[in-house]
Amino acid sequence: MEVAVLGATGMVGQRFIERLVNHPFFELSDLAASSRSAGKKYGEAARWVLDSAMPKEVKNMSVREVDPKKINAEIVFSALPSEIAREVEPKFAEEGFIVASNASAYRMEKDVPVLIPEVNPEHLDLLEVQKENRGWDGCIFTDPNCSIAAAVVSLKPIYDKFGIKSVFITTMQAVSGAGYAGVPSMAITDNVIPFIKNEEKKVETEGLKILGRFDGKKIIPANFRVSASCNRVPVLDGHTESIFVETRKKGSIEEVKKVMKNFRSLPQKLKLPTAPENPIIVREEEDRPQPRLDRYAGKGMAVTVGRIREDSILDFKYTVLGHNTIRGAAGNSVLGAELLVKTKKI
Amino acid sequence: MEVAVLGATGMVGQRFIERLVNHPFFELSDLAASSRSAGKKYGEAARWVLDSAMPKEVKNMSVREVDPKKINAEIVFSALPSEIAREVEPKFAEEGFIVASNASAYRMEKDVPVLIPEVNPEHLDLLEVQKENRGWDGCIFTDPNCSIAAAVVSLKPIYDKFGIKSVFITTMQAVSGAGYAGVPSMAITDNVIPFIKNEEKKVETEGLKILGRFDGKKIIPANFRVSASCNRVPVLDGHTESIFVETRKKGSIEEVKKVMKNFRSLPQKLKLPTAPENPIIVREEEDRPQPRLDRYAGKGMAVTVGRIREDSILDFKYTVLGHNTIRGAAGNSVLGAELLVKTKKI
Amino acid sequence: MEVAVLGATGMVGQRFIERLVNHPFFELSDLAASSRSAGKKYGEAARWVLDSAMPKEVKNMSVREVDPKKINAEIVFSALPSEIAREVEPKFAEEGFIVASNASAYRMEKDVPVLIPEVNPEHLDLLEVQKENRGWDGCIFTDPNCSIAAAVVSLKPIYDKFGIKSVFITTMQAVSGAGYAGVPSMAITDNVIPFIKNEEKKVETEGLKILGRFDGKKIIPANFRVSASCNRVPVLDGHTESIFVETRKKGSIEEVKKVMKNFRSLPQKLKLPTAPENPIIVREEEDRPQPRLDRYAGKGMAVTVGRIREDSILDFKYTVLGHNTIRGAAGNSVLGAELLVKTKKI
Amino acid sequence: MEVAVLGATGMVGQRFIERLVNHPFFELSDLAASSRSAGKKYGEAARWVLDSAMPKEVKNMSVREVDPKKINAEIVFSALPSEIAREVEPKFAEEGFIVASNASAYRMEKDVPVLIPEVNPEHLDLLEVQKENRGWDGCIFTDPNCSIAAAVVSLKPIYDKFGIKSVFITTMQAVSGAGYAGVPSMAITDNVIPFIKNEEKKVETEGLKILGRFDGKKIIPANFRVSASCNRVPVLDGHTESIFVETRKKGSIEEVKKVMKNFRSLPQKLKLPTAPENPIIVREEEDRPQPRLDRYAGKGMAVTVGRIREDSILDFKYTVLGHNTIRGAAGNSVLGAELLVKTKKI
Repeated sequence: MEVAVLGATGMVGQRFIERLVNHPFFELSDLAASSRSAGKKYGEAARWVLDSAMPKEVKNMSVREVDPKKINAEIVFSALPSEIAREVEPKFAEEGFIVASNASAYRMEKDVPVLIPEVNPEHLDLLEVQKENRGWDGCIFTDPNCSIAAAVVSLKPIYDKFGIKSVFITTMQAVSGAGYAGVPSMAITDNVIPFIKNEEKKVETEGLKILGRFDGKKIIPANFRVSASCNRVPVLDGHTESIFVETRKKGSIEEVKKVMKNFRSLPQKLKLPTAPENPIIVREEEDRPQPRLDRYAGKGMAVTVGRIREDSILDFKYTVLGHNTIRGAAGNSVLGAELLVKTKKI
Repeated sequence: MEVAVLGATGMVGQRFIERLVNHPFFELSDLAASSRSAGKKYGEAARWVLDSAMPKEVKNMSVREVDPKKINAEIVFSALPSEIAREVEPKFAEEGFIVASNASAYRMEKDVPVLIPEVNPEHLDLLEVQKENRGWDGCIFTDPNCSIAAAVVSLKPIYDKFGIKSVFITTMQAVSGAGYAGVPSMAITDNVIPFIKNEEKKVETEGLKILGRFDGKKIIPANFRVSASCNRVPVLDGHTESIFVETRKKGSIEEVKKVMKNFRSLPQKLKLPTAPENPIIVREEEDRPQPRLDRYAGKGMAVTVGRIREDSILDFKYTVLGHNTIRGAAGNSVLGAELLVKTKKI
Repeated sequence: MEVAVLGATGMVGQRFIERLVNHPFFELSDLAASSRSAGKKYGEAARWVLDSAMPKEVKNMSVREVDPKKINAEIVFSALPSEIAREVEPKFAEEGFIVASNASAYRMEKDVPVLIPEVNPEHLDLLEVQKENRGWDGCIFTDPNCSIAAAVVSLKPIYDKFGIKSVFITTMQAVSGAGYAGVPSMAITDNVIPFIKNEEKKVETEGLKILGRFDGKKIIPANFRVSASCNRVPVLDGHTESIFVETRKKGSIEEVKKVMKNFRSLPQKLKLPTAPENPIIVREEEDRPQPRLDRYAGKGMAVTVGRIREDSILDFKYTVLGHNTIRGAAGNSVLGAELLVKTKKI
Repeated sequence: MEVAVLGATGMVGQRFIERLVNHPFFELSDLAASSRSAGKKYGEAARWVLDSAMPKEVKNMSVREVDPKKINAEIVFSALPSEIAREVEPKFAEEGFIVASNASAYRMEKDVPVLIPEVNPEHLDLLEVQKENRGWDGCIFTDPNCSIAAAVVSLKPIYDKFGIKSVFITTMQAVSGAGYAGVPSMAITDNVIPFIKNEEKKVETEGLKILGRFDGKKIIPANFRVSASCNRVPVLDGHTESIFVETRKKGSIEEVKKVMKNFRSLPQKLKLPTAPENPIIVREEEDRPQPRLDRYAGKGMAVTVGRIREDSILDFKYTVLGHNTIRGAAGNSVLGAELLVKTKKI
């Protein structure tokens, strides 16, 4: 199946390429980027910023314009900025493309699933509703915000087993979350920035949608409350989050650990190519997870949880870490597309 | 009045020296350190690690042993490690010295005040109880833990005006909190460490004692609950903390800001030499406080609060920042000693 | 005397403001910036990025356009980007302003002095030649490149005493040298970038002009060779440079130290307000200078030299450190203007 | 063939384990460490600090004492501190072990080869001289200092083709070179330290020995001069070095690039398991090599060279980068042992 990447020259675009080259399901047929890059060879247009080298397969590919007429693919992975995504992604969906989007533009639309394949695979059925609503041949599904992604994976087995009443999340987010040039070194060296624009609202709402119930027509959000405080720290990749949880039923710390450790879902059952063996890795050391040591767990697709302990006010608290541009972006989208293919939803 | 510093060669010891040289109340008469340094000139024994230069006044002072018989002073400022403090500080108190301690060793003893001069100046009266209990001519009062120090300053006007039911604190703490060699660069570069030994317990208990009521004989702790999650981040100085608060009476965000902005206390009234004009500086920018930009506010003695906003679960949330080795250590002790002197408690 | 800052909202512009507010010679009458900022209050137009707070004196000043007709001042300090400086600075000079420029645009023009007040104060006489050549009422003098600035200050007493045959310089430059948003944190965290565009050429040529001889009409460059290798390192402020020197006459390490330590020049003799007591501070510790500890020596105007030692190939080697946006930019310009005023060259 | 690691719990010890687990030639039979760790399971004794996880194969191995009588192996890889190595390594050699040492203790002894397998494989013949001299059944060969290792690999093809007269090296060294706890974060954050104890002497002498000629009895050092200036920078792994070279015969920049690119040596011909395909990778981009992007080239065994350009004083200059604990330590030793095995020197 042929797939394309929109916004292929940026950092998340590069993460897509890294994960799609030599993929068992997908053939990377087209790369698209802004008019500044369109027409050039990818090797000239893009400045590769990942630690891995630029795959030789893409060096000589011609960069296309971000235009459905110029792209040959069934699925397009979109790493476009949100404003451009808002305008362009529907055009792709209209022309019959399946759009796997990293932008926030359509996340909170009623008929657009925000997918974490291990958490809400059944939300993909919302795509039928979407197609009907909009009269599209194609469709759009999106990634969650990179901060809530890791949190929700860790909360899913808790929610299923104990129910949740309230969650406090303080994030310590990596600079890559703002894009390659998003955070100047002058701003963040020897510093913490206690603010990320629009981030707290995303963290407080998207998780409820993802953990919501699909009733055949719409998603009924999960019925609990989330409060977030979002911070930028001098870390390259990997968002670390301190989480405090109040559950409906009480569970011991050991039970909480157990449901997290044992959590497996559809991507694991289907043995999807990039599904991590364990979506949640529980560490027992007193000082883990740490972004530099744990961000590549499960090739960046596992979230790592540690310090699960009793809370003096609510029920328990813990720290979770996830790779923001893999589990929280490109990797999550690719896994979603694998799920679509394997479940014959396309 | 002659004063001495115990543990004078370490980083907090240096902060003491920085603040005591040319002090209007105090004459720095003696510097004491471990037997490795004792007998040498301070300029040879100490490797100065602050950005300021080593004051010329101390270069040629002979380093003394940490022994009450070798020290000539009325007040000793102790920057000793906790295990050594536990053994040595009572000997000084017994010999009639006033010990202003940065160690955690005696903080939770019933007759030892944990002093923040703006928050609980009346707790100094506990020293009389202590002297009587222990039969000492001198006494010990201590600094709080460096994380709770900033938080409690910011919570004090809230507590007085609205009452507090619960507080969640996630800290992002500077490496200097662990001492000069405490955090290897290999451990923290491009990283967050979600654990600081014994720190959460201190944060969860010390604040209640500081905000407690002195009934003439003992301190009755404040009646609310604190939950803490403590993290180390790649910042040199300045602890940043995300705080979520549930109050007893409701107040608007504007009222909360107002009580913080207007907070003044005894050190301000007495115009103590190192008292900051405003113990709490409230910033209105969306992205402050930041440790690199705000840690030296009020010469390191003011805490900076920002992002005061409504909370989706409790009442409000905000970010506070304080300089951990000044407001949270040496500076706070020196201000405490100024208060003692000015109020003629010694 | 009234002075203005062009490019006042950027980082070097802010350094100018920091040094000009409450200056004994100058009255900061106007601030100018791009059309995006012009018309706004400075406090709204500028995002202050220095550790010091924005001076209250400038908050309510209206930002002007960068247009000689809109500016009321005798001296304009220019922190404009080089392309804009190339176009705009001559217009100011033509209109009679003295332009103290930080841009590289006119540095290598034959009739434009590149001034380090301690090194080549006599080059200011070239301004007469410039005025005559160009028919200007005003004039332009410039700062050197921020890397060569520190090196040349340290080389000046060597050059005068021993002569120089060749110099190898490897720089480890701070990120502020590229402007506030110049170096993304994704680019430099846990990294070194061994390249700075056009920098090596500047280092290899500007120093020879600065150390050159003014013959009354033109500057005859110093007759030695410089080779540079320029690197960016994860440091906020302060360029550190490893320097290897071959001299014409031989001097012992002690003699080299002595001429550096004893170096004083015209700004010191004239007691100019921002002249450092010692332009060169020689440290004897084995591990100094260090940017974080030494960059503010002499309020950022002194360069710090350390590790002066014999070289196994040439004559000696050492490390020099200077604050790149103070000694290497705004501070150097202001000192230059003080020199002009005091020597009645204006 | 059974091999053991001495000093197995430290960072270089861990690098050894990483490279020896599942090695096609070697079976990791024993791990030894200080008496503090001896007797424990490795998984308990060691705090794993590499980004990879601790290999499961070693978790349950019992840590041995560093005593030849307690170790069962033919080759011992020593990551011991230099003072301990000085005492212990000869005992192992005496007992018949081949000691592949990372310590500096014996590097400059006349009968001890300092081996870089691609540069001076013929120096292994010196081991026969050593055995005879010392009456040992075993022998010692060592790694070079981690800074000179990368430099010498890059200089070898230059030396062979053009001859060398003089070399200036300014290093920007990673913190891992000082061991896990060697450089406090308080020392290096936002800083450069222009000093590494004893490092410059090693850089100035070891390379000459490595490039020296073995005449059947002894090594005649290469006849050129090296001058070094060594700096520590805030980088985790990977030493970056600015190098200026004067050759005996002149070669164009293109010729220099060509001999570097084409450099292959005995380990490549023998297809040793950990030999990099290209010992030197030449990058053409203007801003490479960079430690974060290039340190793992050739799985950490290739050095990356960039910015080869004409020098204004000598012949040419360039930047080289090598992974200091792989190419400059554990990886180099393992490759040396592979060479010994394959060439039947053991």
